[in-house]
Amino acid sequence: MTRIDLNADMGEGFGPWRMGDDAALLGIVTSANIACGFHAGDWDTMAATMQAAVARGVNIGAHPGFPDLQGFGRRQMKMDPESVGRMVQYQLGAAQAMARAAGGRVRHLKLHGALSNMASVDGELARHAYAAALEVDPDLVLMVLAATPMQQAAEALGADFAAEVFADRGYAEDGTLIPRGQPGAMIPDADEAAARISDMIREGAIVTASGKRIETRIDTVCLHGDEPSAVEAARKLRARLEADGITLAPF
Amino acid sequence: MTRIDLNADMGEGFGPWRMGDDAALLGIVTSANIACGFHAGDWDTMAATMQAAVARGVNIGAHPGFPDLQGFGRRQMKMDPESVGRMVQYQLGAAQAMARAAGGRVRHLKLHGALSNMASVDGELARHAYAAALEVDPDLVLMVLAATPMQQAAEALGADFAAEVFADRGYAEDGTLIPRGQPGAMIPDADEAAARISDMIREGAIVTASGKRIETRIDTVCLHGDEPSAVEAARKLRARLEADGITLAPF
Amino acid sequence: MTRIDLNADMGEGFGPWRMGDDAALLGIVTSANIACGFHAGDWDTMAATMQAAVARGVNIGAHPGFPDLQGFGRRQMKMDPESVGRMVQYQLGAAQAMARAAGGRVRHLKLHGALSNMASVDGELARHAYAAALEVDPDLVLMVLAATPMQQAAEALGADFAAEVFADRGYAEDGTLIPRGQPGAMIPDADEAAARISDMIREGAIVTASGKRIETRIDTVCLHGDEPSAVEAARKLRARLEADGITLAPF
Amino acid sequence: MTRIDLNADMGEGFGPWRMGDDAALLGIVTSANIACGFHAGDWDTMAATMQAAVARGVNIGAHPGFPDLQGFGRRQMKMDPESVGRMVQYQLGAAQAMARAAGGRVRHLKLHGALSNMASVDGELARHAYAAALEVDPDLVLMVLAATPMQQAAEALGADFAAEVFADRGYAEDGTLIPRGQPGAMIPDADEAAARISDMIREGAIVTASGKRIETRIDTVCLHGDEPSAVEAARKLRARLEADGITLAPF
Repeated sequence: MTRIDLNADMGEGFGPWRMGDDAALLGIVTSANIACGFHAGDWDTMAATMQAAVARGVNIGAHPGFPDLQGFGRRQMKMDPESVGRMVQYQLGAAQAMARAAGGRVRHLKLHGALSNMASVDGELARHAYAAALEVDPDLVLMVLAATPMQQAAEALGADFAAEVFADRGYAEDGTLIPRGQPGAMIPDADEAAARISDMIREGAIVTASGKRIETRIDTVCLHGDEPSAVEAARKLRARLEADGITLAPF
Repeated sequence: MTRIDLNADMGEGFGPWRMGDDAALLGIVTSANIACGFHAGDWDTMAATMQAAVARGVNIGAHPGFPDLQGFGRRQMKMDPESVGRMVQYQLGAAQAMARAAGGRVRHLKLHGALSNMASVDGELARHAYAAALEVDPDLVLMVLAATPMQQAAEALGADFAAEVFADRGYAEDGTLIPRGQPGAMIPDADEAAARISDMIREGAIVTASGKRIETRIDTVCLHGDEPSAVEAARKLRARLEADGITLAPF
Repeated sequence: MTRIDLNADMGEGFGPWRMGDDAALLGIVTSANIACGFHAGDWDTMAATMQAAVARGVNIGAHPGFPDLQGFGRRQMKMDPESVGRMVQYQLGAAQAMARAAGGRVRHLKLHGALSNMASVDGELARHAYAAALEVDPDLVLMVLAATPMQQAAEALGADFAAEVFADRGYAEDGTLIPRGQPGAMIPDADEAAARISDMIREGAIVTASGKRIETRIDTVCLHGDEPSAVEAARKLRARLEADGITLAPF
Repeated sequence: MTRIDLNADMGEGFGPWRMGDDAALLGIVTSANIACGFHAGDWDTMAATMQAAVARGVNIGAHPGFPDLQGFGRRQMKMDPESVGRMVQYQLGAAQAMARAAGGRVRHLKLHGALSNMASVDGELARHAYAAALEVDPDLVLMVLAATPMQQAAEALGADFAAEVFADRGYAEDGTLIPRGQPGAMIPDADEAAARISDMIREGAIVTASGKRIETRIDTVCLHGDEPSAVEAARKLRARLEADGITLAPF
């Protein structure tokens, strides 16, 4: 039986500002990556998001990012890797406490934005971030971009991990994401994206733009919910996977 | 055998800035209240302070405050009590994770600055802050100002608590602190302060400015270390208590 | 000829987050109060908002608030009045520079949120904030709540000011706003609100809930644009004032 | 007659924290680069520093940096150059307003920390930052690292600029600073550093580690005052320059 987890970023408001349709997404995904206050997600937003995730039976993940609200954690910061590790611990701990108060617990960790981008090509940075997180909770599942230095870092640490592919992004011939702004970076057609992901999951392989298969472990699919069309695409993906006999369940 | 804990605030630097002589204080106190990043204490400072506390066998406490670096958490903020509770959970969780990474654990919680001042006269605020912290860790020891609504809130919650008196502050006839700026607010002479505290501990009573005794539980004494003279006063206090046969030990 | 200014808060997004329909409001108001980065409005948002205001011929005002993004500047902070003055100077200066870069200039100053609420009942705080702003620009127009200690502070400083009433708020018998949450605090019906404001302007008086007239200078009306219905109400108000022969123009 | 300006960074405290001996430096330098609140220097610190500079007749400069208190603006942030320009405008404007309130005015602009490092090798970034600043004040003097893309950017903009050398740093054979951590990066001997700078100023040339002369315009020398020894070195430098007949005066 083929199983897959669906994940999405949530709790990305801050103070008076909202972002995304978390309520809708919680009916679709099996894991929620919850912002931890640095790039988004103040403590009230975190608490409300975690309570909603617990109520819907969706797995809670900590989603730490750079301390940059204005840039939404999407601007690279050149930070000492040891300090990055401690920054991850800080945010992870905050999330753990709030999850506990919400009657849940933090099951996984996913790096956000520029921190994730940097770690996906810098295994040393990934290792520092992950090793620091495991010092706090050795049973944490690390959500990594499949077949990148992030996955290698998780493997080298002997950690539980969940390898992730993106529902709406194109893959280059070497298995990396086609950079945003280049042709094929996004897969705008929801049906095409759903079919492609279903393929990938059943074959255990990344499917590149040219149709090439790169075998790799796939445990979870990243969805987006920033816009109504994204929520609709997420629904279609879920329906397609279920129609194809794939079991949707948290890792 | 009479026992007492000595506590001090630590880890109150931020980024490039330092404050206080933590190394000296760690040789004197038995409990450290470590700033959690909101009024002071970024993650690198927290980690270094916790490692030092673990190395010296000093108890680690979380010391949450208002999100106000510029005001060092000393400016009152009118915040919804429920939100204060979640804010305490956030900081407590961050401290727990970093303590774990440092090989220790958070044993107690002490509110900082204006948050503490407000909670010391507003039992409802104290209750929200404490109840929220206990949701995260029911075994947490709450460090409360002795004989105030903070202590009553801790008692009402059935929580472990440590009742605190101040080494260098004068007490009014009703057992409250004489406000800073008023005559008798500070006890500048270190020997006099030490003798008075030794008295209080052995008699189990707050001694007011006029010499009146107000019986109350006393578990810990708050020291300061911001200035060289404060560290010296702390040393004198410890020596005096030991000379008077009082055992210094964490609660 | 009766003249009135219409003002609204704008530029209240931050980083990735938006708030309100500034584009729609710029077609209705004659003055824009632009957030200065402390409670909302990062530098990119400020620049875009100011460019839009210049393009539409709408007056630019600085709208400083407490340094509290999470609370949107709506939580009271107990800050030294001298420091409040310097905080206002800081935000005002930032706004002036950005207005200049956008080809405009800051014409007025309006305090935001809790800072405004506090200053509206604390003339000393208002005086510090206003005196500090006038040190930076003696020609600045101070937007004050009509018939409050704010107006008295502006008058005592010999400053230009614009006295403000609220389009959608009810007034108590003493001329103060009925606190939110109490009956009559809000005037939900847009037509009723428009008629009432037109009355106030033509009579030069605040009209209380019971219909009592309190004569006072009225220079500007505060509109809101957070929700589609608010923009619609603002349009109705403008149309009504024009129909009643009142000239809409910046002070 | 040979003239030179001496400059130093000041106002680098934040909230309760102090850094450097500004009072001592103000008796030595002719220009002060005052932190603008993003990497250091809250509004109260800015005001006090500017008042002290005005009282001592020292030129006031705005010293903007990245929004990163914890990293003291020394961590690179990958920010859109247009946004960097607006960020510089924001900080410059804040400084202008506070200088005006202190009875002075902002005469020059010097980029701080990582922002300066990045602009010193990225002429495009320098151009955006400088062009934005000149939009706010076309008469602003840009303080640039001598003979770098910063100077070229200032020249290309037709701006007034002051070319800067460092009192205590060694120069490589191509005229760039020897990176910290490499041999010769620092010139620890204050007398040697003073003699070398006197040489440079009188010859109008950077003197490299091997003694090579690279002719370039030199208008100002950067001093440090973080430590007592640095203040002492600054005093020696000033005395040496005066002994060598060089006039110390702001540009």
